[in-house]
Amino acid sequence: MHHKRILVTNDDGIFAPGLNALVEIARTFGEVIVVAPNSPQSGMGHAITLHEPLRINKIMQFEGIESYECSGTPVDCVKLAKNVILKDKSIDLCLSGINHGSNASINIIYSGTISAAMEASLEGIPSIAFSLLDYSFEADFKACEKFVTEIIGKAIQTGIRGCKLLNVNIPKLGGSQIRGIKICRQAEGRWDEEYKESKDPRGESYYWLTGNFITNDYQEDTDMWALENGYISIVPSIHDLTAHQALRDNLHFEYATQHDISVESPL
Amino acid sequence: MHHKRILVTNDDGIFAPGLNALVEIARTFGEVIVVAPNSPQSGMGHAITLHEPLRINKIMQFEGIESYECSGTPVDCVKLAKNVILKDKSIDLCLSGINHGSNASINIIYSGTISAAMEASLEGIPSIAFSLLDYSFEADFKACEKFVTEIIGKAIQTGIRGCKLLNVNIPKLGGSQIRGIKICRQAEGRWDEEYKESKDPRGESYYWLTGNFITNDYQEDTDMWALENGYISIVPSIHDLTAHQALRDNLHFEYATQHDISVESPL
Repeated sequence: MHHKRILVTNDDGIFAPGLNALVEIARTFGEVIVVAPNSPQSGMGHAITLHEPLRINKIMQFEGIESYECSGTPVDCVKLAKNVILKDKSIDLCLSGINHGSNASINIIYSGTISAAMEASLEGIPSIAFSLLDYSFEADFKACEKFVTEIIGKAIQTGIRGCKLLNVNIPKLGGSQIRGIKICRQAEGRWDEEYKESKDPRGESYYWLTGNFITNDYQEDTDMWALENGYISIVPSIHDLTAHQALRDNLHFEYATQHDISVESPL
Repeated sequence: MHHKRILVTNDDGIFAPGLNALVEIARTFGEVIVVAPNSPQSGMGHAITLHEPLRINKIMQFEGIESYECSGTPVDCVKLAKNVILKDKSIDLCLSGINHGSNASINIIYSGTISAAMEASLEGIPSIAFSLLDYSFEADFKACEKFVTEIIGKAIQTGIRGCKLLNVNIPKLGGSQIRGIKICRQAEGRWDEEYKESKDPRGESYYWLTGNFITNDYQEDTDMWALENGYISIVPSIHDLTAHQALRDNLHFEYATQHDISVESPL
């Protein structure tokens, strides 16, 4: 097996314990480069920074590992790693996480953790996003270490086939309680949200997002079912948002028919 | 046809000409409420604001139309509209745009315009994102007015079937040069990016994103083909990122097999 170069990033920021846990596992597989946001970036989705300049600082965070903090979003980190920091050097694998909290079901679209890995996958780099269903700073990443190690090992050994991105979620259980790994589809779900209204010292209102995740989609092929039943979920993921079923069903063709025929449409 | 309530938003901000053009069209269909960001939010993707409070200000921007500017991202605007501004009132349709610039192909995942509409669609609201392939402030939205009007009319009349979100891109052509409307899939593509490095007054480096969009996917069923050939493209879109083809092909099951069998896996 030739030398592997592994980019590690996250969305909780350079000082998050989950990043440290992932770096310690990644270093057993090859050369690791860390490029992570200098502040928490949860909920940044696939945001990129267009209207502001970006900063990169080399830091001493992980012993013997080249590490950088970046002023942007998780997606910015991946772009900077590829285009500025590593330039002509190839990246064999991108790992993102380990996120503090679930990125199962619809959370994938809000998640900076996933978006960083997605960005790398768009560049053709096999990528894996890891999330542990434990929001606390003291989250125990030890319990999932052997599973994370195995998933990375498989990805390196056999490649990620059929897509370039795996979304891995890990239940909050002791290692011996985790029942195994399931390959799943993304469950349907949504956030039932509220904004908590408060007043600032000048008496002006401000709003802060809060809410509960809701899903009724616990079919056996979903990530929600897997996690609920003690399994690690892996959703092979892509960046194509086309509603292919709707396309196949020609459901929308009525929009087109009257235009398709000639240059002079009768509008 | 009963009274319709239409939420209009965008990612270029409350003062963008494209928003004004969309509001003027939307008001011919019913009651319009505008909730848009107070600053340009291009490239924000599906970002939501979690670590900061949000502000909403009622403004006089569009005559006779209830309008608000919001301190957050496009997705925040939709969430605030639904949960704070409109509360118990239903929204029949969400329109986002008209964006200054293309959201065809992979640009859908970086686009705040699409994400705003996507967020509404997650809430079950039929939604349409409009983008014109013209970045300039002086972009001529007049030329596409009749097509935008027709697409909205159809969506109201027959509903959006098979999904809840349409991604509409409009070529930069005079109205009589537009050949019609095509229903498409999202073309494959990617950004070939560079960061322009500069020095600040203290001699420290900073980086600014620049790049070119690249696609070779001009098959006749793609949005890129449609736009290249003078058609308006409509991609019916969903928020499911599962790589269903990879799932169907069982390409990933080797990860699972050794774990599926028993609680005591042999790891």
